[in-house]
Amino acid sequence: MTQAPHGTAGARRPTGTLERHGGIGGQRDEEPDSPSDGHEAAALLRESRASVEPGLRSAVASLPASMRRIALYHFGWQHADGTPAEGNAGKAIRPALVLASAAALGGPAARAAAVPAAAAVELVHNFTLLHDDVMDRDTTRRHRPTAWTVFGDADAILAGDALQALALRLLAADPHPASAAAAARLADCVMELCEGQHADTAMERRAPDEVTLDETLAMAEAKTGALLGCACALGALYAGAADQDVEALDAFGREAGLAFQLIDDVIGIWGDPRRTGKPAGADLAARKKSLPVVAALTSGTPAAAELAALYAAPYDEDREDLERSTLAVERAGGRDWAQTQAADRMARAMQELARAVPDPGAAGGLLALAEFVTRRST
Amino acid sequence: MTQAPHGTAGARRPTGTLERHGGIGGQRDEEPDSPSDGHEAAALLRESRASVEPGLRSAVASLPASMRRIALYHFGWQHADGTPAEGNAGKAIRPALVLASAAALGGPAARAAAVPAAAAVELVHNFTLLHDDVMDRDTTRRHRPTAWTVFGDADAILAGDALQALALRLLAADPHPASAAAAARLADCVMELCEGQHADTAMERRAPDEVTLDETLAMAEAKTGALLGCACALGALYAGAADQDVEALDAFGREAGLAFQLIDDVIGIWGDPRRTGKPAGADLAARKKSLPVVAALTSGTPAAAELAALYAAPYDEDREDLERSTLAVERAGGRDWAQTQAADRMARAMQELARAVPDPGAAGGLLALAEFVTRRST
Repeated sequence: MTQAPHGTAGARRPTGTLERHGGIGGQRDEEPDSPSDGHEAAALLRESRASVEPGLRSAVASLPASMRRIALYHFGWQHADGTPAEGNAGKAIRPALVLASAAALGGPAARAAAVPAAAAVELVHNFTLLHDDVMDRDTTRRHRPTAWTVFGDADAILAGDALQALALRLLAADPHPASAAAAARLADCVMELCEGQHADTAMERRAPDEVTLDETLAMAEAKTGALLGCACALGALYAGAADQDVEALDAFGREAGLAFQLIDDVIGIWGDPRRTGKPAGADLAARKKSLPVVAALTSGTPAAAELAALYAAPYDEDREDLERSTLAVERAGGRDWAQTQAADRMARAMQELARAVPDPGAAGGLLALAEFVTRRST
Repeated sequence: MTQAPHGTAGARRPTGTLERHGGIGGQRDEEPDSPSDGHEAAALLRESRASVEPGLRSAVASLPASMRRIALYHFGWQHADGTPAEGNAGKAIRPALVLASAAALGGPAARAAAVPAAAAVELVHNFTLLHDDVMDRDTTRRHRPTAWTVFGDADAILAGDALQALALRLLAADPHPASAAAAARLADCVMELCEGQHADTAMERRAPDEVTLDETLAMAEAKTGALLGCACALGALYAGAADQDVEALDAFGREAGLAFQLIDDVIGIWGDPRRTGKPAGADLAARKKSLPVVAALTSGTPAAAELAALYAAPYDEDREDLERSTLAVERAGGRDWAQTQAADRMARAMQELARAVPDPGAAGGLLALAEFVTRRST
């Protein structure tokens, strides 16, 4: 298993970092640079949480007692001792994408009908968080100790299993004509997420010169892009959209997810610790094979060789190690490549969105959410 | 997590012990005492495997590459190095129950239609085996090293996650009118299985005098009875049965499952190691709180106090420890209670079966399978 020596959600755990990006949930100091876009996204996220949370809470309440207790803790709705907590269940980007996608293609009625699908996507996301934290030995999630540190590995695994079942149960019990297709798609996405997490842990165990850029991109797409794409596709299915529009929205979510991951990896190296909430250079110190690092390592430049030599040894608590690694990634072109790739992915996302939702007014919500998750590129 | 010091599937892991009971799969020395019943069950199991295995193999083949590799190993279809293996995927009692139940209530057409449901139940069963083995640190499954010992904890957890998704995907993609109800029921069952596994590991950590017989029975029902009941209920759903018949078949499977567990626990103490495949007294040596043990501990007899004193200390590699523990369970009435309970549960199972399937000819298959899983009572 990958060790996360700093106990932080690393750059390769986008599911965590996506939530770390603040702006919402009491982190007002992290509001985006562009107020109008950010405010639209913030409003969409707030409205989405208001629509989805009752169903989500009632689904969690239907779990058997012990699984319920762990889930309530994980969602931040209860303390470990079972007393009520203020709640910080994350910004819930994914359910907002489901609802925005349904609204873009089917208006308010489709948005209302898609609420169970939005809750199902959020349950799947949280199932993977519970399991990823066990595998990655991450000790902090949403500013609280992770479930496995409180309840033990076995119960965290079981609670994740139960949340996956609960997600697919919500769709199985939904009489909407799209629910079966949505369930099949969400199950496919779970398998892709598993493959992405496997690839991530396997790649972290391999030597730096054994990892290619293509497989790193494929891993990021499976681990981050897949569920964002699935969320958008489920909204489209619930709007009764044509197959090609469902696929276009899936591609939109995937490309936006990859753009997010690229930017998150850049922030993991050059980000301001006061904004990222993790120590500067943590990803380099952990020798993470993030996208800019792999781009640098595979660049064939002299700086690539220097970076490879640094990565061949464990991190030295010496600031020069970090400075030298950071500079090597930059000189090898890792930063430029990642920023160009991110812009390219966002452009592709916009093309896919325009294909499925030509009316800019209808597409505005999805656009605002995509800009929200990637806004640190500005 | 519960430690299994002998690395064997213990009496509290019925999912494993149910497969250990031989008769099929090259263990011909374990044929049942009553040849006619056993032969009927053996034929049903063989026919069921022939019907279900193609769909099961094709579902596993559809997994992403890494997950597929682990699943192929777990099912015994490949060696760890990826070369083909002879295959010992277990006797597959649960899919046989799905098909027998569908046949009993809807004839051959319903049996044929229920094949995806049978495969889904088997996938769920195997997902729980992968995860339980990680949690229980069991090192052997179907005479081979468990998946986590070969691929590591993370990959075994991920492969289990993927198999759960695959199970519910099979039902989501099935156009049969019962598939959504079956998926909802199977998802509910997964949550119950999680609760059962949680209760099992939690009870093993508690002091012997803190465990009641009722909660031990409830745990065994959740952990063993639930999926056998669900298998029968899914067959009934696919036969288009009325609600009360679906519930009666669920109850039939649950009661038969509890009878099985009671008998398995008796075998775990008094069984012949040559037949059980595990060392004599392994459950007592591991201080397992199996059903006869808890019945003995809560009997209020002098032997109960003696057993409690023995259980208060770790197992002593001294044969007298086992002899004294065995005798104490017996003298405290644990064996008699378990055998009486098992007979009582089987009688209840028969009543439920007769209620849903009054024609003895149609009920014959389910009866043979129920007798097969509990036949060691003879």
